[in-house]
Amino acid sequence: MIKRTDSSPVTMFMGASTKQGYDIASKSRKIVKSLIDHKTRHLSPEERAIVERIVHSTADPEYADITKMSSNFVDESLKAIRNGQDILTDITMVKVGINQYPGDVKCYINHDETLALAKEEGITRAAAAMKVAAAEGFDGVVVIGNSPTALLEVLELVQNGDMDVKSVIGVPVGFVGAAESKEALHNTEIPHLITQGPKGGTPVAVAAVNSLINLKS
Amino acid sequence: MIKRTDSSPVTMFMGASTKQGYDIASKSRKIVKSLIDHKTRHLSPEERAIVERIVHSTADPEYADITKMSSNFVDESLKAIRNGQDILTDITMVKVGINQYPGDVKCYINHDETLALAKEEGITRAAAAMKVAAAEGFDGVVVIGNSPTALLEVLELVQNGDMDVKSVIGVPVGFVGAAESKEALHNTEIPHLITQGPKGGTPVAVAAVNSLINLKS
Repeated sequence: MIKRTDSSPVTMFMGASTKQGYDIASKSRKIVKSLIDHKTRHLSPEERAIVERIVHSTADPEYADITKMSSNFVDESLKAIRNGQDILTDITMVKVGINQYPGDVKCYINHDETLALAKEEGITRAAAAMKVAAAEGFDGVVVIGNSPTALLEVLELVQNGDMDVKSVIGVPVGFVGAAESKEALHNTEIPHLITQGPKGGTPVAVAAVNSLINLKS
Repeated sequence: MIKRTDSSPVTMFMGASTKQGYDIASKSRKIVKSLIDHKTRHLSPEERAIVERIVHSTADPEYADITKMSSNFVDESLKAIRNGQDILTDITMVKVGINQYPGDVKCYINHDETLALAKEEGITRAAAAMKVAAAEGFDGVVVIGNSPTALLEVLELVQNGDMDVKSVIGVPVGFVGAAESKEALHNTEIPHLITQGPKGGTPVAVAAVNSLINLKS
C-alpha cells in the first residue's frame, strides 16, 4: 500500500543529495563503468544499473562477476515496487538503508512474537521473522542481506504455499550456509537476484533494492 | 554517559542470540581463523578478534590484509567504551548496527541543522553532520562507514582543535576519495582503524565497533 508520496525530503542520486555528494557519485559512476563495462554488456540497461550500483556501494568489482538475476527479476520487482507493495527485510540495517521507498518496509527481527518463536523452535531470529511475516499475510519483495537461514525459510514457506512473494533479493553473507542458500534460491522459479559464493551483505541488498526504486520512476 | 546497563535483551556472540545462530557463528569463526590465521599472527589477541569479526561479517578474507590499526587504537577505544563515552556514526545504517552498546550512539545526518549546513556550505550531509556533532561538544569514538568527506571533516575539526575524539574507525567505501581519506587518517596521531584502498563500508565499521564492545567486558 502506498502511504506517503512525499517521503523524500530531497532528490537523491545513488544516495547523494548535495552538490558535493552528487559530484562524488557521478565520478564514482564513471569509474565503476570503466571497471566493469566489459563484464555487463550482456545485461539489459536496468540490470546493468543494478550491478553498477552494487559495485559503487561496495567498491568491489567482483560483484559484477557474482551477481546473477533471473530473467524476470527486474520486471517482476519493478511491477511490485510500482504498485507500492511491501518490502520485507531480514535485519534492521537493511531496512534503514531503504530510505526512499514510498511504500512500507517491514522487518520483524525485534518483534516479541519473533523472539518467542525463535526460542520455541530453536531457529534463528531472522528465520522466525520470515514466518511471522508470512503469518501476517506478507506479499511483496523480500530482501535478505544477512541471514542464510532466513532465505531458506522463505524458500520453504513459498514452496509450501504459506508465503506470497513477488521477487527475492537473496544476498546473505558468510562462510556457513550463505552460498548454499543462494544456490537454492537460484534453482527456483521465484524471480530473484543473488550473489554467488559467500560474499554479499547489507550494502549489496540495499544497493539492489534502491536501484530498483530509482528505476521505477 | 552510560544510560542503561540492561539494554541487551539477549546474550550475543558475533551477532547471534539463538542456538542455531550461535552454531553458525561458531562454525564461521573456525573457517575465518583457518583462512586468515597466518596473516594475523603479528597482531595482539584483541586486534586479531577485531580482524576476524570483520572477515566474518564480510566473508572477504582480503580485509585481513587491508585492515590497519594504530598501536594505541585498541587501548584508547576500549578505555572510551568502558567509560561509556558517546559513539558518533556518519550514517544511520552504521548507527543501527551498533545495537549492544549501553552508551549513546549518535548520528546527525538527518537533523535539520545538518541539512541546512550542508546546503549553506555546499558540503555533503555526512560532513555537515560531523560539524554539528563537534559544535554539540562530542567527545568519544567516531565511526565512519560510508563517507570520505565526513572522515576528512573530522580530521580537519580535530586538527583545528574544534573536536575531541578518543579514536576513529575510518572505513569509508568507494572509488572517489575513500582511499585518500583513510590514508590521511593513517598519517595522524589519532588512535585509529582503517581499511586501505577503496573497500570498507557499513558491515566493516559495525564489525569493528561491535568487536570492541564485546572485548570491553
